[in-house]
Amino acid sequence: MLASGWRRFNTEAGQFPSNKQRFIPGSGTYPQGFTAGGLHCGIKKNGKPDLAVLLSDRPTTASAVFTTNQFCAAPVQFDRHMINQARERDVRVVRAVVTNSGCANAVTGKRGLEDTQSMSEAGDRLVSRADGSLAVSSTLVMSTGVIGQSLPVDKIARGVDEIVLGPDHDMWMRAAIAHMTTDTFPKLLSREFNANGALFRMAGITKGAGMIHPNMATLLGTVCTDACITQPLLDKALAFAVARSFNAISVDGDMSTNDTIAVLANGAASHMAVTSEDSSEYRAFRDSLTEFMAELAGLVVRDGEGATKFITIEVAGAQSFADAKQVASTIATSSLVKTAFYGQDANWGRILCAVGYAGIPLDTAKVNMAIYPGDGSDPLHLVQAGEPQLPVDEVRASEILKQEDVMVRVELGLGEESARMYTCDLSHDYVSINADYRS
Amino acid sequence: MLASGWRRFNTEAGQFPSNKQRFIPGSGTYPQGFTAGGLHCGIKKNGKPDLAVLLSDRPTTASAVFTTNQFCAAPVQFDRHMINQARERDVRVVRAVVTNSGCANAVTGKRGLEDTQSMSEAGDRLVSRADGSLAVSSTLVMSTGVIGQSLPVDKIARGVDEIVLGPDHDMWMRAAIAHMTTDTFPKLLSREFNANGALFRMAGITKGAGMIHPNMATLLGTVCTDACITQPLLDKALAFAVARSFNAISVDGDMSTNDTIAVLANGAASHMAVTSEDSSEYRAFRDSLTEFMAELAGLVVRDGEGATKFITIEVAGAQSFADAKQVASTIATSSLVKTAFYGQDANWGRILCAVGYAGIPLDTAKVNMAIYPGDGSDPLHLVQAGEPQLPVDEVRASEILKQEDVMVRVELGLGEESARMYTCDLSHDYVSINADYRS
Repeated sequence: MLASGWRRFNTEAGQFPSNKQRFIPGSGTYPQGFTAGGLHCGIKKNGKPDLAVLLSDRPTTASAVFTTNQFCAAPVQFDRHMINQARERDVRVVRAVVTNSGCANAVTGKRGLEDTQSMSEAGDRLVSRADGSLAVSSTLVMSTGVIGQSLPVDKIARGVDEIVLGPDHDMWMRAAIAHMTTDTFPKLLSREFNANGALFRMAGITKGAGMIHPNMATLLGTVCTDACITQPLLDKALAFAVARSFNAISVDGDMSTNDTIAVLANGAASHMAVTSEDSSEYRAFRDSLTEFMAELAGLVVRDGEGATKFITIEVAGAQSFADAKQVASTIATSSLVKTAFYGQDANWGRILCAVGYAGIPLDTAKVNMAIYPGDGSDPLHLVQAGEPQLPVDEVRASEILKQEDVMVRVELGLGEESARMYTCDLSHDYVSINADYRS
Repeated sequence: MLASGWRRFNTEAGQFPSNKQRFIPGSGTYPQGFTAGGLHCGIKKNGKPDLAVLLSDRPTTASAVFTTNQFCAAPVQFDRHMINQARERDVRVVRAVVTNSGCANAVTGKRGLEDTQSMSEAGDRLVSRADGSLAVSSTLVMSTGVIGQSLPVDKIARGVDEIVLGPDHDMWMRAAIAHMTTDTFPKLLSREFNANGALFRMAGITKGAGMIHPNMATLLGTVCTDACITQPLLDKALAFAVARSFNAISVDGDMSTNDTIAVLANGAASHMAVTSEDSSEYRAFRDSLTEFMAELAGLVVRDGEGATKFITIEVAGAQSFADAKQVASTIATSSLVKTAFYGQDANWGRILCAVGYAGIPLDTAKVNMAIYPGDGSDPLHLVQAGEPQLPVDEVRASEILKQEDVMVRVELGLGEESARMYTCDLSHDYVSINADYRS
């Protein structure tokens, strides 16, 4: 039968590139009350999975951060409205997230908005069937893939009707796989946290990154947690976490029309409730979310188009987090710095140059810079007090730069604040993927 | 003799890449009162020309625009001080520019500043010998090449003593060749202008662009004119022209420690005097300078590292020049847009996306976009009133995009202001040049 053919597909890690296997979990501990699933509903021509559903067995507190691109796609407009409505009325409404890959439903005009409505209603019907209740406006929608094409909403609706959901690792992996566009591996993460003895869990799915065939793709991320948290505190924790995770990664500096990062908290872990910003529970939740999302966002960088290296840029000694972030971001988005890493070249001049044009007032004589290898061995100090440490120890530089994980640490000597950015190198393959995909 | 060996080198266009020959002039009309020359003084290990001198037979009004990078190199600090002194005292002092390639004298501390002083004094001695007079603080200096290494000032001083200068095309070409670092061809331009019957001339030399082996290079440009103009009006005209020329080009978005664009006006064309901002002479001078510098800056883009295309981004219908420039710049620096051009792909989605995140408030329903071929034939309209014109006419798109010169025109529909940016594509060779130069 066609329908059962839709449901079954291979979720084994072995089908993905061998150098990415270590980022694909073989098991997980998932938040209570959530189920997941994925299938091929017919959007992608190549028959690969293209529809994912995440469902909570009770209403969630939901928050999201969206692209600031003014050509934001229909699902972004739709979700923003739904979450704002929930905020204003202070009610928990979100029960599900329906995500499709293969079509971004972007630059699709009025029809695009109608299609998001249909897609969300398909999710609502699923919720109603699961509950026996009448669910209305309870389903967020996300889309990624080609822009300027309309969604095949009938296929999506039929897929949502047919989908099999479950709480176990394999079903979460199906959902993660169905998020992929040019991603080379599925991005799924789950963790259990402990706040003063109260256990709660998070599971997250994301997809990268880079703007992809044939027009552009997008950054999507959904984190489900069984913690209980109020809307204002979830909004606040998410803003904090995103600034240090999904907004701290750069693959090519372009900002897509569809970028969406959502968190759904269903409160099924009954001992973990966050109700006050001054509580240790809030700090535990915020910091757990930040750590979790930084790791999740890191997977996107690992799969940056053509990436061969994972580069952490840490800027310390700034007067503010914003200053530190700006300097880190300037370094992380410099094509010259990124090509130098691809070439495994200790090009301190390019990094120092990026620091110099980042737009933050400097005392250049206070600037230090070093590179740290991923294996935890000694760093190599390249600039001290604004002066290059010449000649560069090329042997040590080469040892460090041939590692997959490298950190650049810049100290500004102006204050106590720091920030990190995560980026990848700029390779021949990046150019090939983005220039030659038609051939 | 070694000295005469220094003086002689091949200036024939035939030695440069065949696809760049049409940008190398075979003759020129040069401003009166200026002489030029170039030689190899021993900075470059490969024996190529590395020292250029431009000399005026009388003091000039000099203005310059410098890098805003806070790690600005010693020659930038030195020249800025000299020109500010001239401004404050309202005197004409600059007689010469001494430029070396092969060493940027950047991040060289106190010694670097002392070396610029020595380099400038060598120029002053040359001026004194030419005049029989005592010249002091009359020589601007520019350096480009490796950073973090000290200047071999003795070699430069000896080179300035030995150099042969002349007013003819071949001598200007020597000076242009001596500016080159990884430039594949010399960048020299000369033009004669007519303002209400008064003739004046401009000659300019520039060098690119991209940050080059082994650490970074720089953008240098010097324009000599025999017009007569006051300091405040030259400052004003230069600011106007640079915003529309050298600050309207992007190769890789990085801003070097040494970037310097200078204009020297010696007044030898006695009928062309610019003394009032309201005069037609001022407007003629300003517009001539802008047109001249846009063409000169274009040569840098033509020689962008790995560039195969010259792309003009024109943004019209903005509420201000700054808004139009910001949108144009965002498009011009998008790695995705640049790789799409390399791949000859009519990727309107990437361009529209860059418009959307440029940070300027838009009415997305008013945005139009088209691509124009360099041969002047019909454009292809890709977006009208915010909607993609689907399906894209791929045959026509391919005809347009296989041309070397392509213009993207975006209309915002918000006002009357427009701006242009000039950029190149992002190719495999860009990555190779910037990643692999050690191998």
